[in-house]
Amino acid sequence: MDKPKVDMNRLFHALGDPTRRAILDRLSIAPASVSQLAGPLAITLTAVKQHLEILEAGGLVHTEKVGRVRTCRIEPAGFDALEQWIATHRTELEKRFDRLGQFLLDEEDD
Amino acid sequence: MDKPKVDMNRLFHALGDPTRRAILDRLSIAPASVSQLAGPLAITLTAVKQHLEILEAGGLVHTEKVGRVRTCRIEPAGFDALEQWIATHRTELEKRFDRLGQFLLDEEDD
Repeated sequence: MDKPKVDMNRLFHALGDPTRRAILDRLSIAPASVSQLAGPLAITLTAVKQHLEILEAGGLVHTEKVGRVRTCRIEPAGFDALEQWIATHRTELEKRFDRLGQFLLDEEDD
Repeated sequence: MDKPKVDMNRLFHALGDPTRRAILDRLSIAPASVSQLAGPLAITLTAVKQHLEILEAGGLVHTEKVGRVRTCRIEPAGFDALEQWIATHRTELEKRFDRLGQFLLDEEDD
């Protein structure tokens, strides 16, 4: 199965809201139904569903309706994409430090 | 020197905007002045400064004014905090898979 493609704008938009990050905290421990998510957050089911749609669009959550219950779980694709994004920026930073190190060594040789 | 403490709300807010992520892309390659950042982004100096304030508050950028020029560079603290946030969620996920694996093994033994 192909890994879902993650839209970075949607991913970062999804992560920008504290309620949505609270939903991720909760789902990291175990999958949950929409009403199980709504309870501790003290928000309406409608609000939870809207947040879940945004989290799904960002590749961070997967939901599946079986009968009358929608079960929500973490979708690793978004986390993978986020790690990749950090790694790319880290690589550039490290390359820069390597160039600086080489420059200082070259200076020393003169 | 102590590592700057990162406010996760501010960090994720800072990352939520595509122009601010474009600034991070640019600064990952090399430090830049405010006007060097403004040019390719085709936005005003005032807009860049506002984005930089938000990026600084999120622990992602450090700026320093020397004479009349403000130089901007990547601040690793925000990237460290983001990696830590992912790691925490990954750990929970992995623990969950471990429990699932153990559960399946226990089932097999029966």
